[in-house]
Amino acid sequence: MFERYRTQINTALRGALSSNDIAVYPMLKYYMGWVDKNNVPINATGGKFLRPTLCLFACEATGGDVAKAMPAAAALELIHNFSLIHDDIQDQDRTRHHRETLWYLYGLPKALTAGNVLRVLADTTLHNLQTAGLSSSQALKVIGLLTEAYLEMIEGQYLDISYEATANVSLPQYLDMIKRKTGALIRCALNMGALIGSNNSDVANGFRSIGESVGLIFQVRDDVLGVWGDESLTGKPVGSDILRKKKAYPAVHALSEIESFDKQTFLGIYEKQEDLTDTDISQILKLMDLANTKHSAEAMCKTHAQVAINHSRKVNLDRSSMNELDDLIQFLMIREY
Amino acid sequence: MFERYRTQINTALRGALSSNDIAVYPMLKYYMGWVDKNNVPINATGGKFLRPTLCLFACEATGGDVAKAMPAAAALELIHNFSLIHDDIQDQDRTRHHRETLWYLYGLPKALTAGNVLRVLADTTLHNLQTAGLSSSQALKVIGLLTEAYLEMIEGQYLDISYEATANVSLPQYLDMIKRKTGALIRCALNMGALIGSNNSDVANGFRSIGESVGLIFQVRDDVLGVWGDESLTGKPVGSDILRKKKAYPAVHALSEIESFDKQTFLGIYEKQEDLTDTDISQILKLMDLANTKHSAEAMCKTHAQVAINHSRKVNLDRSSMNELDDLIQFLMIREY
Repeated sequence: MFERYRTQINTALRGALSSNDIAVYPMLKYYMGWVDKNNVPINATGGKFLRPTLCLFACEATGGDVAKAMPAAAALELIHNFSLIHDDIQDQDRTRHHRETLWYLYGLPKALTAGNVLRVLADTTLHNLQTAGLSSSQALKVIGLLTEAYLEMIEGQYLDISYEATANVSLPQYLDMIKRKTGALIRCALNMGALIGSNNSDVANGFRSIGESVGLIFQVRDDVLGVWGDESLTGKPVGSDILRKKKAYPAVHALSEIESFDKQTFLGIYEKQEDLTDTDISQILKLMDLANTKHSAEAMCKTHAQVAINHSRKVNLDRSSMNELDDLIQFLMIREY
Repeated sequence: MFERYRTQINTALRGALSSNDIAVYPMLKYYMGWVDKNNVPINATGGKFLRPTLCLFACEATGGDVAKAMPAAAALELIHNFSLIHDDIQDQDRTRHHRETLWYLYGLPKALTAGNVLRVLADTTLHNLQTAGLSSSQALKVIGLLTEAYLEMIEGQYLDISYEATANVSLPQYLDMIKRKTGALIRCALNMGALIGSNNSDVANGFRSIGESVGLIFQVRDDVLGVWGDESLTGKPVGSDILRKKKAYPAVHALSEIESFDKQTFLGIYEKQEDLTDTDISQILKLMDLANTKHSAEAMCKTHAQVAINHSRKVNLDRSSMNELDDLIQFLMIREY
């Protein structure tokens, strides 16, 4: 499924970013992985294109022409990248996927503005919905869905930042946060795609429900990989989320399960000002083991996979689309990168 | 004109920001001047509401009902404030209008995110265009105009940041930059208002042309006040833009006019790492005098006022609207705050 749409998504994204008007555009092309720092084209593999792929799949699976959903798909990927540019600034990360980040290369003011440009290019892309064959009222509905999801995403980012300074984030708080921060855009991808494909609000809502579970699975798996992932596949060192003292699923879950004494140990390590040692990391890993955290994360993903599959049985899909959706959910649960 | 719409604009803005879902909303209400740092309501005078006022005026002057343009008017003010929040971060300004800025109070990550929330609330507001009586295709046109203007504004901000590190910014470069950074949203205000009011693209384009000149007048006057404004009226110390070494109209113009020897003196002062002294400021003021900068700025505003008035004679306005527009242009040319 990912391979099927890759070339078309790439073309649409390059079209959206074709301007050379001012120097911000080479910065953005660098961030998208198309050119190096000197604006020389490079051969990059690019991202997974998860969100646009989900959108195009939902459109096709519900009987629509992929081209009709392409503006929405491209907008999703642009918004996703915009949020990464601003995330890099907030987290002061100097690299992402082994490449230097924009604020680190060009300074904060230009990077912040570059992110805002990418964000508005997503809106510009949506103007092509009508050219792609949607009616005005359909186009407005799609724009409305994306705006709604985008607001949730930013609210989720705000909660995520707030939680960094909160010792005890509860599991329900964490789940609400990722539902917004990551889930909203993934849910919207399937929702928009199905709306464009079917022009039927029941079908669109069915995919919206599927998307809610898919979003949760994606993020919880991401959090599992952040602690137990294989460095050669994720590109991040083992325990990287522990090193960064991130309050992702593993930390939140372990803290909610372990006894008071162990909790003090855990928080003592997470509240250290200095860098964590290997001993710190193995102590945290031991506490997560004690709390059965990894297993609990996988169980939660399994439950939500079943929820997604149940929803998919209520929308009328042909066998091949149904199988693809099942495979996708399976893949998101066990992916190693 | 400003008083006529003030209450309605205020109500619309408060409606757009009525959520209390998460802690970002009190931050935004603080920034809008409605509450203090502890979320206690205060009596603030609020801004000029220039952009929404222009939008509502254009709607009314072209025969439309003000309520129809209100979502667009509110969106303009929200976008304007979003850009101020991010500007404060970029410029590291600790206060604006004598109030502490968001990044200074809450840290950069939360402030950046708060700005992004305000930006998306502008989009959310536009969904009310249909409820306010616009057809889907009219609503899409309005959304398209705002997106176009918003992209130009961000591009202008990017150019503005780039020019900070450029010794010699030419007058044409400067004018192109302000046309985008400030002009685009002001032009869009009149353009959207007239489109909603008249539903006629000739009338809308006439107001667009008026808006281009109005935007230029507004920014050049702002730049004049930044150097020669009365502190008791502008709230900024005399010569504040010189103190900040801002490459606004006065600096760009003076540098383009004075001889090579004086230019070295001027740039020598503007390139100082340390704070400028009173002697530095009076030397810069003397060079601006020599270049006849203030007079040249006022002459440029006069020329553009005439251009705007010529355009206004081509759209069919009743006498009272015509007079109001003339008064507005006159006011923007001579305003002291």
